[in-house]
Amino acid sequence: VTETKGTAVAPPTTATNGRVSSSAQLAPSGAKDTLRFSSELRRTHEVTITRDLLHPGNPALRERIGDRRALVVLTPSVKRLYGRRVLEYFAGEATAAVEFMVLERSEASKSLDAAVEVCERAAAAGLRRTSPIVAIGGGVCTDVCGLAAMLHRRGGPHVKVPTTLVGLIDAGIATKNAVNHLGTKSALGSFHPPEHSLLDIAFLATLPRRHVVNGMAEIIKLAVVSDAELFALLARDGVALVESRFAAPAPVGAEVVRRSVAGMLGELARNPFEVGDLRRRVDFGHTFSPHIEVASGHSILHGEAVALDVALSSQIARELGLLSEDDLDRVLCLMREVGLSLVWPGMSVDALWSTLRAVVEHRDGDLHLVVPTAIGACAYLGIDAISPALLRTSAERLARRSAARPGTLGRRSRT
Amino acid sequence: VTETKGTAVAPPTTATNGRVSSSAQLAPSGAKDTLRFSSELRRTHEVTITRDLLHPGNPALRERIGDRRALVVLTPSVKRLYGRRVLEYFAGEATAAVEFMVLERSEASKSLDAAVEVCERAAAAGLRRTSPIVAIGGGVCTDVCGLAAMLHRRGGPHVKVPTTLVGLIDAGIATKNAVNHLGTKSALGSFHPPEHSLLDIAFLATLPRRHVVNGMAEIIKLAVVSDAELFALLARDGVALVESRFAAPAPVGAEVVRRSVAGMLGELARNPFEVGDLRRRVDFGHTFSPHIEVASGHSILHGEAVALDVALSSQIARELGLLSEDDLDRVLCLMREVGLSLVWPGMSVDALWSTLRAVVEHRDGDLHLVVPTAIGACAYLGIDAISPALLRTSAERLARRSAARPGTLGRRSRT
Repeated sequence: VTETKGTAVAPPTTATNGRVSSSAQLAPSGAKDTLRFSSELRRTHEVTITRDLLHPGNPALRERIGDRRALVVLTPSVKRLYGRRVLEYFAGEATAAVEFMVLERSEASKSLDAAVEVCERAAAAGLRRTSPIVAIGGGVCTDVCGLAAMLHRRGGPHVKVPTTLVGLIDAGIATKNAVNHLGTKSALGSFHPPEHSLLDIAFLATLPRRHVVNGMAEIIKLAVVSDAELFALLARDGVALVESRFAAPAPVGAEVVRRSVAGMLGELARNPFEVGDLRRRVDFGHTFSPHIEVASGHSILHGEAVALDVALSSQIARELGLLSEDDLDRVLCLMREVGLSLVWPGMSVDALWSTLRAVVEHRDGDLHLVVPTAIGACAYLGIDAISPALLRTSAERLARRSAARPGTLGRRSRT
Repeated sequence: VTETKGTAVAPPTTATNGRVSSSAQLAPSGAKDTLRFSSELRRTHEVTITRDLLHPGNPALRERIGDRRALVVLTPSVKRLYGRRVLEYFAGEATAAVEFMVLERSEASKSLDAAVEVCERAAAAGLRRTSPIVAIGGGVCTDVCGLAAMLHRRGGPHVKVPTTLVGLIDAGIATKNAVNHLGTKSALGSFHPPEHSLLDIAFLATLPRRHVVNGMAEIIKLAVVSDAELFALLARDGVALVESRFAAPAPVGAEVVRRSVAGMLGELARNPFEVGDLRRRVDFGHTFSPHIEVASGHSILHGEAVALDVALSSQIARELGLLSEDDLDRVLCLMREVGLSLVWPGMSVDALWSTLRAVVEHRDGDLHLVVPTAIGACAYLGIDAISPALLRTSAERLARRSAARPGTLGRRSRT
């Protein structure tokens, strides 16, 4: 751009509204007739562990909304179990501008039109650009609301209040969100950090056992690849935690959630928007599992699929001599003890293999299969390290090991 | 989080893949049991003015795609007028992984499912996380593709090649993108800067006259509020530029585009993600116009609606004594000369007034109506400064002024 060569067209500027700020600079580039527009977007996401979140005397959630209008989105379960308390919590004068909606979606119906449904309600409720969408529910609800916040007014704020174990230690503290599309898990989504995550393990008291077990899979995943101390806690008290919905042994439930949250966020902080190097320890258990969830028609929950993937990936590591038999035993034993299945008859070697090929695309040309090398350590495998024969051998070994003691997928409870 | 208090949980880290980089830090916050996750996303958007973009000897577009797979999205008009040249341009071996699609959408059908259609094609074409979506078309096409790139793999790269005048100086260089939903213009969207915008005014040679006039509205808008020299160029050569499709007078067409692009980007650089202070000079002409576009069933083009808004906002400034009669005359004369209408019979004062109330919501509680105070200068008006009576007076004055010489909206051409 001739008349601007050699001079900055626009000096660096900064704009801010508290938790979000941005800078930009416009300058000639080295190339002919080229302007370079450099922008920077900074966001702060606060994750707070609190107790009795819905007690009228706990100001945490109200303070975070402040005097802004807000749309509070509940799942049908949350409405049934906590609806009255939610209404009472927001009944004061200070928060008169809060509106509510119930979002009835499961993993099987976690689609883009769910996010649009929330956007439409947000528009009808008169949400402004700085008005938050507050999701109180499981991972489906917080994901859909995160994407809705991204689409409504091009990136409005959102607050996540997870009520499931997966939500507390994974979906409810994540930077990214997504919905499923045309049989592909998380096909459409965005990176859009929430303003706040408010975590209260008291919600687990009403969580069905199966969903507690489901969340344990994500905690075990994290422990196996990055936190041997957390693994030791789970090995000692994991079963009791499931049975008590994290209430007993008393300090351990909170400690496990704290360690998991700090560990997960620490892993995310390495590369929160997944640019460049796509090796992520938290992807352990997340290579085969999206396919498994979809192939099961979402009858297998996310964590259950993660557990199947953790088992298979660990067995692969064993076959390749990367993981000791003892450590493999410890991983698989813990999973079976808390009630997770190690195999699912619906998995074919062909399907697993074609899943790997699709993951290579998603991870930009490299597989980066995360496998444990010890409790608390991991390695990344390329597609060349895997073969259909290796998958078959690993699956067969797991099936034999599992036959002695089948997991919950064979004997589903109704609770 | 007890065990981490006083120490950084995760030190600052940086990840990069060339044009995108990010940093993050996880640290205890001052508040009890709170971790603060601070993230930063940096993106570089290069805007290049080139000539003969589709000439096989011009490597600009091929170089920017490099060895990556790409999905090139064309509009039906671009396919008809330039399809053969586009295919020839990409016919070499180096770019064998380029796939094509034709997106048939108008402003009236610029909806979320258009973006989903592009995402589906991107998935089918095997686009990876770093594979760009390349839009060659007008503002509808570049907007839809920008949003598709945001949703596909949570923020993939995109490249904009605008082929209309509005595209060259506005939509094709913008950081944000949006689609319409349920009768609301730009109701769903995101901020997602493209990697590259490649601008070639030669595309204007095949642009229908009405669309050249349409683009002139955005250039006049920019000139009136921020660039008196640009206004002088338009006053002198605007009509000739429209008639010649920016080919004559020879250096002026390129100069007008260069000034407009640098001016627009300079304005965007002040606050590219629209956080905090929402006063934006480039919002001149963009307060009443979204309603006008929708109310007309999109029979009025974007720039034509912007012109109606510019006229009304300028007349309001005159009524309030903020703009001289001479300067108002210069603005309105220039618009009529290039063929823009100043009034549309479909606008009622009631609708204009309720539009203002909705804009107050979008701009987070303040109207910030941009009005010119001279050629090259502007002010922002709050909702308290406007009344239905003021709108009525202003609209009536404009109608009388316009009656002497009606614009194109009354006598639409078919070209």
